[in-house]
Formats: sequence, structure tokens, C-alpha cells
Amino acid sequence: MDYLDLMRELSIEAETKILMLVIDGLGGLPIAKGGPTELEAAHTPNLDALAAQSICGLCIPVAPGITPGSAPGHLALFGYDPIRYRIGRGVLSALGIGFDLQPEDVAARGNFCTVDGEGKVIDRRAGRIPTEKGTELCNLLRKIELPGVEVFVEPVRGYRFMLVLRGDGLSGELSDTDPQRVGVKPLPISAGPGAERTAELVERWVEEARQLLAGHYPANMVLLRGFSKLPSIPTMEEVYKLKAGAIATYPMYKGLAKLVGMDILPSGETLEEEIQALKSNWDNYDFFYFHIKKTDSAGEDGDFDRKVSVIEHVDELLPQIMELGPDVLIVTGDHSTPAQLRSHSWHPVPTMLWSPHCRPDGVKGFGERACASGSLGRFPATDLMPLAMANALRLTKYGA
Amino acid sequence: MDYLDLMRELSIEAETKILMLVIDGLGGLPIAKGGPTELEAAHTPNLDALAAQSICGLCIPVAPGITPGSAPGHLALFGYDPIRYRIGRGVLSALGIGFDLQPEDVAARGNFCTVDGEGKVIDRRAGRIPTEKGTELCNLLRKIELPGVEVFVEPVRGYRFMLVLRGDGLSGELSDTDPQRVGVKPLPISAGPGAERTAELVERWVEEARQLLAGHYPANMVLLRGFSKLPSIPTMEEVYKLKAGAIATYPMYKGLAKLVGMDILPSGETLEEEIQALKSNWDNYDFFYFHIKKTDSAGEDGDFDRKVSVIEHVDELLPQIMELGPDVLIVTGDHSTPAQLRSHSWHPVPTMLWSPHCRPDGVKGFGERACASGSLGRFPATDLMPLAMANALRLTKYGA
Repeated sequence: MDYLDLMRELSIEAETKILMLVIDGLGGLPIAKGGPTELEAAHTPNLDALAAQSICGLCIPVAPGITPGSAPGHLALFGYDPIRYRIGRGVLSALGIGFDLQPEDVAARGNFCTVDGEGKVIDRRAGRIPTEKGTELCNLLRKIELPGVEVFVEPVRGYRFMLVLRGDGLSGELSDTDPQRVGVKPLPISAGPGAERTAELVERWVEEARQLLAGHYPANMVLLRGFSKLPSIPTMEEVYKLKAGAIATYPMYKGLAKLVGMDILPSGETLEEEIQALKSNWDNYDFFYFHIKKTDSAGEDGDFDRKVSVIEHVDELLPQIMELGPDVLIVTGDHSTPAQLRSHSWHPVPTMLWSPHCRPDGVKGFGERACASGSLGRFPATDLMPLAMANALRLTKYGA
Repeated sequence: MDYLDLMRELSIEAETKILMLVIDGLGGLPIAKGGPTELEAAHTPNLDALAAQSICGLCIPVAPGITPGSAPGHLALFGYDPIRYRIGRGVLSALGIGFDLQPEDVAARGNFCTVDGEGKVIDRRAGRIPTEKGTELCNLLRKIELPGVEVFVEPVRGYRFMLVLRGDGLSGELSDTDPQRVGVKPLPISAGPGAERTAELVERWVEEARQLLAGHYPANMVLLRGFSKLPSIPTMEEVYKLKAGAIATYPMYKGLAKLVGMDILPSGETLEEEIQALKSNWDNYDFFYFHIKKTDSAGEDGDFDRKVSVIEHVDELLPQIMELGPDVLIVTGDHSTPAQLRSHSWHPVPTMLWSPHCRPDGVKGFGERACASGSLGRFPATDLMPLAMANALRLTKYGA
């Protein structure tokens, strides 16, 4: 049986509130041999005190050794098996720019690229044209019309854009045109069962795009990949009987939260504004997803000290969160982003779950090494929601 | 492959003996912030010394966050996936009163309830009539005869009773008549495929019960739920090639042991009598399930100190058990029952497995926090039987 089925069967309504604080890319690595990680280096008296009253462990978002993207990382935290529920790249591109994707839409991620006289790809990123140029070319591509469907072309960043086809009976079962290497022509699309018409429409769009872009060297062609539709995911209300609200500053995370049925709350741009959003909406929701982006950005930039500072900032604001009186508080991340690696990584994420009904495990502070000796051990991220539900007294007994 | 299939394939006969000591509801919680759990508060020199020679960990009966009933908790300890093997409430009612349920029987849990003039339920528990009254009404209901089947009505406690239909071709695929709320009439039964005749028989029984009880306000009607038959479970002998005996004082646990093919040994009522039963039967079995009930009862009563005392009593008797010379001894529980919560809970259960072939992990005492740092970590209960079998040198190598 799927874990979600068990949750659906056992979950009950209650007055308790669960807050999940997702510090993006929280887990880190030492930059000096034997030194501390970002979290260990940070001065975090409030998080440390909370850890001493919590159950702690190292959270594995997808599977050991697997570096998660933001989508699987978050789905797992929300209790959805990230191997079963996959989100296509096209859909993710749309979520990332806040595009209001509809259930029947087919989305793809697009690149402007450079082709030579024979039509062979010589630069998959069109000389990394600036966003302004990409935006201008997207405006040009919007002229293309297709019979019976609406077409959306939106700039993403630099040479990247998003393509969405909207209409009845479209399918996302299409292969990429992006050959993922230079020296060959863009690939023809092969269509899965029932996707023939969609394939023809896209082929036609690509051909018209080629003609429109012919004089725009180096951006004289497009490559498309990750054709996909919104996956069918049961909402958190259906599964957990929770009214869930999302506090996040970036479109991608709002989009992921919307995907599982959360309300997206106006959250501003700063951490202080996010806290304010939490306070304003406190009475209206059972579950809050609270996303903090800047730890991940600092990690991606390889900026150890800035990541430390963001963590310390979160620590300073923690008392304001606790004053609201959550029944369950989870502090975790959707993956690790060590400054040492300048990217997402596979390392498990230090995590704590606090509630008056948890059984504190003797961990004295919040950090990678401390959490390794916690009673949650090294655990799958999909365990967190069931544990939160249990601690919120929102699950009935299984069997008699 | 199911874990049981692997056991069936690899298990061999041997002279070794395995003893599984199930201290019901063993896991607990602190009642004072930062204080000890029941097990940590108990003075347990014998259990502590044994833990130092054992592998230790925190056992998860069903899944993280899931509070198990006694049935799934025990099935998991015996190595059976508690999600795959589910025991209906009717069957459990029958097991709980020691009713000798046959494979073709259909059992249901019954409530006496109160209905108003229109037949709407106004009290699902008939004003909580005493057991004497319930027993008297069960005698009355025994007058009801049904064509082609034998009917058993047995009092359970207070307003609760058990109904069993015995005959060929009966099905347990029936919906409840209990609407689980007041202000509405008892529900008609809907029958699953092939259950139509059973549904008609039960409907007829309910109608006759209604007529017989009409003058017995507040117990003037019945509600039925959890129609079920004995699940088909392979015996421990089939799976593990173990001759298994059960030592338990309560009918429910004897019933669960019988379900997996154990012999039920006369065990008296006290812990001392249970130890005596173990000694008397020591030479006749390969595997003993030894159940201790009073820890759970104390936890359910919210009596921290009494639970501590029961644990200390077990500790005092441990040397008598060790003197018998088991090859493998497991000390665990089927779930936690913290006095703080006065109920079963989802918290993992401190567990140790001792054998001359285990690899002691440096844990110094037997308690929740100590076991959290044991080498078993946080592990599923269904791992215990395979580990016991291995340590009893009763499993051959897998593959060459």
C-alpha cells in the first residue's frame, strides 16, 4: 500500500497546527578539513535549544546518493514519493516563472541555439544571449499560430524560454528535439501513443520558428525538451485533511505548493515579510509550508559565509515563529547545497521535529554531526509528514 | 519478493531456541521536560547488563508516525507485514474473548445502542449499560435462528458484544450498519461480490434483534461493524520451521499467536506463573512468544510509576529466563504506550537482541535514548524475526 493511502485512511481533523520550515539547501560540507559545515559554523542558539527538545536526524530526500532537484526534494517533504510523482522539465519551467499552467496544457523547456548552414547545431546556448535578447525573440515567436490551440512563449533567462500549448486532447508524450550535443541537426519528434497530433503541431511550430529566427544569428534556431503536463497529484487536503498555506518568495516554490493544493499566501520578498505573512494567516490554516531561499542561493554561489549569515538570520527570527504556538515544528531542507560544491548535492539534510509529544533524543545542537546521532537516524523525507501528523494528534490508530 | 518467501527458502531446522519477550506498550515518554521515560526511570540492572552484550535499536512496528493496534503490532514482531496481513475488527473481537473462530466463520463487533421512535440512533453505546445487562441481552439475542447457519452471540464488555455466523459459503465483505454518528438510522448492509446471501442473513438477524430488544430501552437496538473472516496467514512453522509456543495471560494475545500457528501454553495470570509455564515447556518448543500485559495497562491508565514498577518486576525475573539458556533473546514491545498520552502511540520501541553471535554495539543500558544510538538504529519490526533466525543459526546462505 502507498503511504498516502494509509494517511488518507488514518488522518482526522483536529485543531492543531503544523509548520514546516524548509531552509533551502540547508545541508552543507566543511570547507576546511575537519572544519564545521555552514550550519555547524553558524551561531544558532535558538535552533540549538529547540533541537534539544526535538527528535533529530539526517533526511534523505529521494534516495541515498541521489542529488534532488527542487521539485522531488519538495514533493518528498510533503509526503509524496518523488520516484512515483515526477514533474517534467517543461512543467517545472512554467512553475518557475509563475505561469498559470492548466491541467490540459503541454509545456516544454526551450533553448535558443545556433545552427550552421546545413542546420547542424554548433552552439546549444546561442552564445549565451542576454535575457533582453531572449525576451525580444520570444516576442517574435509569439507571432506563430497553430490551428485549434493557444500558444504561449515566455522568456525564462538568457537563452532559455518556455513553450506551452493549450487545447483539448494534447499529449506530453513527445521526445526532445534537443540532441544534447553539437554537430548534429535538431532531432525530429517521436510521438507516444495518442500524441501524433501534438507532435505535428510542435513540428510545425519549430519549422516556423526556424524561419522567423533565420536572420537572428547566433540565436537562429530553437531546441525543445521535457514536454510534459501537470502530474495528477492528490492534494494535501485529500490526503491529510489539512488546510495548507504556502509562504515562499520565489515562483518555483509557490508553483510546487500549488501543485499539492496549497493556498499561496502573499509573502513579500524578505524573511521578515515572510514572518509577517505567517502571522497574518496563522488562524486560517492547519499546515504552513515556509520556504527560505537564500541559503540555497549562497550555497550555489559558493559563498560559505553568506550561507552562515542567512542561517543565523533564520535563527534570530525563530522565537517569533515559536511565539505563534505551533503544535509541530519541522526544520529541514529540500536538499543540501554545500558552498564547497556550488550546487545541490546528495548529502542528507539535518532535520528536527519538535512537538510536546515527541521524545527528545539527547541531541544537544542543530548540525549535521549532531543530527547523525538523533533518534530519527538517517531517514527518508517521506517519513516527515506522517511523523508530523502523528505528533499533531491527527492520525487514528492502525488496526485494533 | 515477500520477506516471508525468503525466510521459507532459507530457514533450516536446528536445536537452537529463540525467546521473544514482548513487554506490551514498552516505549514511553518523559512526564517532566527533560526527564526520563518509564523505561529510563526504572531500575533495571539485568536488562542494562544484557543490553551491553546485545544489539540495540528503536523498533517501528508498522511505519513511522503510525500508532499500531495490538494486532498489527504483534504480526510485525512475528515477521508478517502488518499492511499486507490485516485483521478485521470482528475477528479481533472474537480473538479478544477467546472465541474459537473457525476459518469459514464471519465475525462482527456489535454495540447495543439506543434508537428513538423513528428508529434513529440517539446513543451509540446505549447509555453504557453494564456488562451484566449486556450479557443478559446477549442471552436474549441467542434465540434468533437463521436458516442454514449457526449463530453465536457473546458478550464482550458493557455495551459491546460479538456476533459470529458459522456455515458454508459465508462472506465477510459486508459494510457496517453502524453509522458512527447519532441522528440517523442504522445503515443498510451493502454486500461485496458473492456476499449477498450473508448480507440477507445479517439483515434478517438485525431485524429480529430490533424486535426482541424493543422493550429494553436504552439498549433497544444493535449496531454491527468490522465484518471479517480469519485472514489466511502462513504459520510460523511453514515460514520459519519453528515449533512455536505462546505464553500470554490475555485472550487477545493468545488469539493472535494462534493465528500464526503457535501452540497456546497454559500460562496462569501472573508474571511468575508465566515464567513457570516457560520452564515447564522449555524442552518442547523452538520459539517462545512471551507476552507481558501490565506495562500497557499501566500506560493506558496514565500511571507512570506503575509502569515503572512492572518493568522493574520483569527485570527481577530476567535471570530466571537467562538460566534456561536461550540461544537468542529479544526484548521489545508491540508498540509504545506512554503514560503521558494514556494510549498506544507511534513512538518507536526500545529493543535489544541478544545472542552469543550478535555484535554488541556499545550501548550501555536499556532505554529509549540509549537504544537510539544502537547498531540496529531505527528499524522496522519485521526485521526482528530474520535477525533472530540468523542469530539462532537457522538460516542458510542466500545465493552462492
